[in-house]
Parts: sequence; C-alpha cells; structure tokens
Amino acid sequence: MRIIEGGGVTSPSGYQAAGIQTGIKESGAKDLALVYSTRPANAAAVYTTNKVQGAPIAIDREHLADGKARAVILNSGNANVCNGDVGLDHARRMCSSVAAELGLQTEEVLVCSTGLIGVPLPIAKIETGIPRVVAALSAEGGAAAEAIMTTDTLPKSCAVEVELESGRAVVGAMAKGAAMIAPNMATMLSVVTTDAALSSGQLQELLSQAIQRTFNCITVDGDMSTSDTVILMANGDGSGEKLGERDAECLYEGIEYACRQMAQAIARDAEGSSKLITIAVRGAATEADARQVGIAVANSSLVKTAAFGNDPNWGRILCAMGYAGVDFDPETAYVSLCGTNIYGNGAGLDFDEDKLSAAMQAEEMAIDIDLAMGKAAAEIFTCDLTYEYVRLNAEYTT
Amino acid sequence: MRIIEGGGVTSPSGYQAAGIQTGIKESGAKDLALVYSTRPANAAAVYTTNKVQGAPIAIDREHLADGKARAVILNSGNANVCNGDVGLDHARRMCSSVAAELGLQTEEVLVCSTGLIGVPLPIAKIETGIPRVVAALSAEGGAAAEAIMTTDTLPKSCAVEVELESGRAVVGAMAKGAAMIAPNMATMLSVVTTDAALSSGQLQELLSQAIQRTFNCITVDGDMSTSDTVILMANGDGSGEKLGERDAECLYEGIEYACRQMAQAIARDAEGSSKLITIAVRGAATEADARQVGIAVANSSLVKTAAFGNDPNWGRILCAMGYAGVDFDPETAYVSLCGTNIYGNGAGLDFDEDKLSAAMQAEEMAIDIDLAMGKAAAEIFTCDLTYEYVRLNAEYTT
Repeated sequence: MRIIEGGGVTSPSGYQAAGIQTGIKESGAKDLALVYSTRPANAAAVYTTNKVQGAPIAIDREHLADGKARAVILNSGNANVCNGDVGLDHARRMCSSVAAELGLQTEEVLVCSTGLIGVPLPIAKIETGIPRVVAALSAEGGAAAEAIMTTDTLPKSCAVEVELESGRAVVGAMAKGAAMIAPNMATMLSVVTTDAALSSGQLQELLSQAIQRTFNCITVDGDMSTSDTVILMANGDGSGEKLGERDAECLYEGIEYACRQMAQAIARDAEGSSKLITIAVRGAATEADARQVGIAVANSSLVKTAAFGNDPNWGRILCAMGYAGVDFDPETAYVSLCGTNIYGNGAGLDFDEDKLSAAMQAEEMAIDIDLAMGKAAAEIFTCDLTYEYVRLNAEYTT
Repeated sequence: MRIIEGGGVTSPSGYQAAGIQTGIKESGAKDLALVYSTRPANAAAVYTTNKVQGAPIAIDREHLADGKARAVILNSGNANVCNGDVGLDHARRMCSSVAAELGLQTEEVLVCSTGLIGVPLPIAKIETGIPRVVAALSAEGGAAAEAIMTTDTLPKSCAVEVELESGRAVVGAMAKGAAMIAPNMATMLSVVTTDAALSSGQLQELLSQAIQRTFNCITVDGDMSTSDTVILMANGDGSGEKLGERDAECLYEGIEYACRQMAQAIARDAEGSSKLITIAVRGAATEADARQVGIAVANSSLVKTAAFGNDPNWGRILCAMGYAGVDFDPETAYVSLCGTNIYGNGAGLDFDEDKLSAAMQAEEMAIDIDLAMGKAAAEIFTCDLTYEYVRLNAEYTT
C-alpha cells in the first residue's frame, strides 16, 4: 500500500471533479462540488440510521437501486432536511440538471447536501451553477473537497495505491466533518472512489465493513446527524470481470485506510476541540463489545472535560466503561493513559500525577483499555469538551 | 395527598435521624448521617446498573437478603469505590458499629457512601463519629439531609401524607444530587421512609416502579454513577397486616410524588446548570418509547447548549428524536418549546424567534414532543450545558 501524497477522489483513473461558488453560502465560499466518472461505474452507499433523513438520501436510495452511478453532486450551506415534498423535488432536480449537462440518465447521478436544516434549498442558484461546475471538471479537481466544507477548517482528501494480483488499483477519498457541533448543521459526507473492478454487491460489503471500523468509530458529541452519507464508486474494467476474493481483500485494506484517514481528520478537526483522543480497547470478547466500551468512554462528558483539563482521572474512565452495557470484571481490567498504567487489580495504581498531566497536554491523547475478556479489539476517535464547544453551540443563530 | 412543608425522612412516625461532622470532608462540613426506625421495618433498594459498583452496594445486597432493615448509615466525602477488600471491610464495619450502638444485628443496618472514588475511607474518623451520630438522633433530624451533600448547593427533603382506607400514612424522603458533574464524584443517594405497613416484596415493586418514573427520568450528562442507591423503608404495623391492593396504590402515589420531588430537585441543582429543562413526550406507543425519546433529547449536548444559548433550535431536538431508536414518523410528529409550536407537518413552523428566545431565558424550560404513535407518555428532567459545567469538570483535581 503506497500513500499518494496530495491525492484525492480523482487519483484513481477515470475520475474528474470540481468545486465552485454559487452563492448558497453567505460567506461567498465554494459551495457546489461534482465528482464524475468518465466510465460506467458501480456504486454503493451507507446512510445515517437517524429516523429523520434528508431528501437527498431518499433520492440516492432510488438512484442506487441498480447499483450504478456515474456522478455525485454535492452542495454545502443547506442540508435539504425537513423541507417536505419541495425538498425531494429539489434533490431530484439537482440530479436531472447534472444528467442533462453530462449526457447521463438522471438515475446515474447521486446527490448530497450539508448545512442548515429546515430551510428550502436555493435551487435557482444551484441550477445556474451546475453547467459551471460541469465545465470546471478536471482530473485535478481538488476544489471539490473544499466546496463541501461547512465548519471544517481544512479540506479533507487522501489517496492510496494498492498492489493486486490483477494489477494496481487506486483508492481516493474526500470528506467533510461531523459538523454536528456547528449551529443547525448536521452532516458528515464522504465520497470514496476506486478504479478497481467490483460488483455493486462487493462494494456494499466492503464499504459497510470499512465504515464499521472507521466512520462509525468517531464521535464528537454522540449526536448522529440527519444526513450522514458515504458513497463508494468503482469504475474499473467495463468488461464485467470482477476482482477475485484475494484481490478484494487487498483492495479492502486500501478502502479501510482511506476511510480511517477521513474519520481521523474529522475527529481532529471537530470545532471547539483542543486534542484528538484515541481510545483503544482490547481484550474484548467481541469486536462489537470493544467498540461499545470505547464509544461509551468517548461519549462521556466527564472523560472529555477531564481530557480538556489534563486531569488523569481514571475514575471517570472506569465509570463510563461500567455503564457501557458490556460484561467485564473490574477486578481484572486495566486502563492506561498516555502510556502510563493508571488502573488495575480493582484499584487505582500509583503514578506521577504531575508528569502524566503534562503528557496529556499534547495534541493527541491515548486511552488504552484491556477488558481481559477475550481477544477482540477496536479503536475509537473523539475529541475533548471545551469552553469553545459550548460557545460555538450556545450562540444564538437560528 | 397533602404536602408536609419542611418535611423529610422523619416525618413518618417512628423514624429518627441525625447528621454530624467527622472530618471526612476537608471543608469541615457535615459528612455522616444516620436514619433509624425505632420499630422493626421492611426495606427494599434499587442500585446503579453500572458494572463498577461501590463496596456499600455489595454489603447492602447481603443485608437486605431478608427484606428487613432498621437503620441506614451514610457518609459523604468518600464513595468507597474501587478500594478492593479493604473497602468491603470498611463498609461492614460501618454497619457493625451502628448495630452495636443501637443494639441491632449488623444485618439490620444498611450503608451508603458518596464522594471520591478510589481513596480508602477514613474509617477511624467514621468509627469515632458513629456513637456521636447515634447520640444526636432525633425525630427532627433535618441535619441528615445536609450531611449527605457533596456538591449540592441545598439539602433535599420532602414529605407527603396520603389517605388510605386503613388510615393515614406518611412518606418522607431525602436525597443528594447526581454529582456526576463534580470531579471524581459519583453518587446519587436517596432514602425514602414510610409508616405504612408493606411487605418487602410490595416495597420492591412500588420502589422499582416509582424509580422508573422519577429518578430514572433525570439525566445531567448521561453518566451513570458507580454508587447510585435508593432505599425505601416501611415500619408500619409490626403485626404483619399488610396494605390491601387499593391502599398500596394510594401509597404508591405518595412514594412516586416524593421520588419525583427529589429527582427534580437534583436536576435543578445540577452544578453548572442555569435552567431546569422538562421534556414531556406523549403520543408514544409505549411508556418505554416515550422515555427513550425523552432521554435522547435530554442527553443531546447540542440541545443542551442551545438551551443555554436561548436558541429555539428545533433541528437539534428533531435530530435527537431521530436517533433515539424509537419508531415514529417525522411527518406527523409535533414539537413545541415553552408552549410555542415550532415543528409539525414535517417542517419547521412559523414563530416569533425573538419572543421565543426571550421565553427560554426563564429558569425552567419546557420541550413538548408528540410522537403521534399511541397514547403513552413520560417526563424527563435535565439541565443545560454551560461554560460552568466545563469549568467545574475540567479543573485539575485528581
């Protein structure tokens, strides 16, 4: 696996992308992005499990019924959620406009929107912008990652090359942050592309597994948005030859790597956070158990404020482990913080508090948990809870 | 049902209580409390479901095996959690010392501890204090509620008289706050007393139901402590005559009322909070569904920061409803805030934002949710998420 520096969704062959400004955002920042496969492509997607879902998700489910897609149109500044039938109509029109410009069927176009909830999409601005974003398509296409940003401070892209028995393949990705932390915003979006040849069934399987280990392992404040969507496209080999099992496994590594890079970038860039917290749980009976314990610790406001305050407070970590709903014995579990053992044998261990507190001041903080119940493991990423989080979310902005 | 102003655990007949200072707390505040029934009493308890539990809970389970208890000894300043066998020994010694002073069996005494985790109990101070707290027992006994406070700003007590076919009965209660919000602290404690005659089986049933509708309906930050304990004692009629079904129902009203008063007082007094938020969910298919939706909204950091910022942000409320894991149709659900309808028919409703924001500045804020799925309802109590919450919990204090 070779990392492609500065790579993104257009690093695999046969993809173009663009990002432009259409005026959806009052700030005047870029707000419309397009990812396009110049060849037929299979595709799969995973959506939020929230009961309240944006109009684009309903349309994408329709359009992906046949497992094929050639383009994804994405806007930021407006999530097109809770807009009733008008929202569905707008989402469809975004797809049909792109299809008309690119000479595709409407069903070959997917749509994602991120930003304000409950405000009708300024569809005229978007429809005026679509011919421009199509004209701007290029194999470079870096502006696409910029045009999907909302409260992200940096665009998020990556690409990686994997060695297969059938030759090389590239996986590229772009994402925007889990901006649940921004007023009225509610979307994590990611588009992952590859030039390998996979059936849509294979794509769905690989994507679901990768998401479980990456995007589903980050949490900022436990709030799950109405629009979270990850799309995976594969445009390799129109001949219908699909990857063998071994090659699919190799490619999976690339997909998981790209998804993890995007997930970590999102946790690191969460607004109001001062540090990335990685919670590694091992010794679990199952991977699901490991994830559940890690997420309980990651979502604990007490753990997150202690992290902000550089307080090596093992009691809060143990308390969150205890209510995670997973079976373990507190007498045999171990907890360490920034590499220092702080809890074991059913009690707090001796450690140098000042030294450990100083170590916690770094930009990355590690919590390692051994449940002593089995051999499964999981890694969860989160950030601390700060004054800035409260400020950003308490400001009157509706 | 008649509220007894200024009442508490000694309002029912045959109870005495006291609270003294023994030096467990560095502040010099009262830290040891005793509740005593002058007659034989049946008792039941409900404990935290956290996997990590304090030593007192293990001892109380032993001592309540026969459904009887005459006294509860409680200390604040130290939770006696994660102290291994020494912790169990200390908890037992607290019970045996009280039993010796009062001429009871050790098994007739229950114990509760609240405060720091992982620090051995200063058992010598407590054992020196026990003869003094026994000597201080009185039918007035108000200092008991004070001696169990940790970060509570006010002692919490109440009492109510209920009319039964078999005569009148009184229910009294005291509680200390869900101080999950205080550094390293982890305990909500409550003792409920009555002079009615109930079997321990009846007590367990009534208490479990009341807790489900009261203490289990408050949440400050979603963290569930290692020591939460609610004890219910009934010392009526040593003759063995128990309440009939109808009288038990009447008494239940009193128990639920007392528990709700204590639960609300805890939510109101949560450190760092600026307002009490009541989330009333109706139109649910089941009471459990109603509670689940209410708790998801109550635990949403985005809803709680919006409440702090007086931001009538229905998108965040709807989003939390959506991930609660309960079936409902966003097209038919309704949400109102401080009595103003803000969401319905699948979209935001028109309302005067300035006026509503002004209404949100009161000390109490109501969120009303109609799921339009059935007839069940539940009420959940929480508080807002403020700068002060972060400050209190981020301060270096281990």
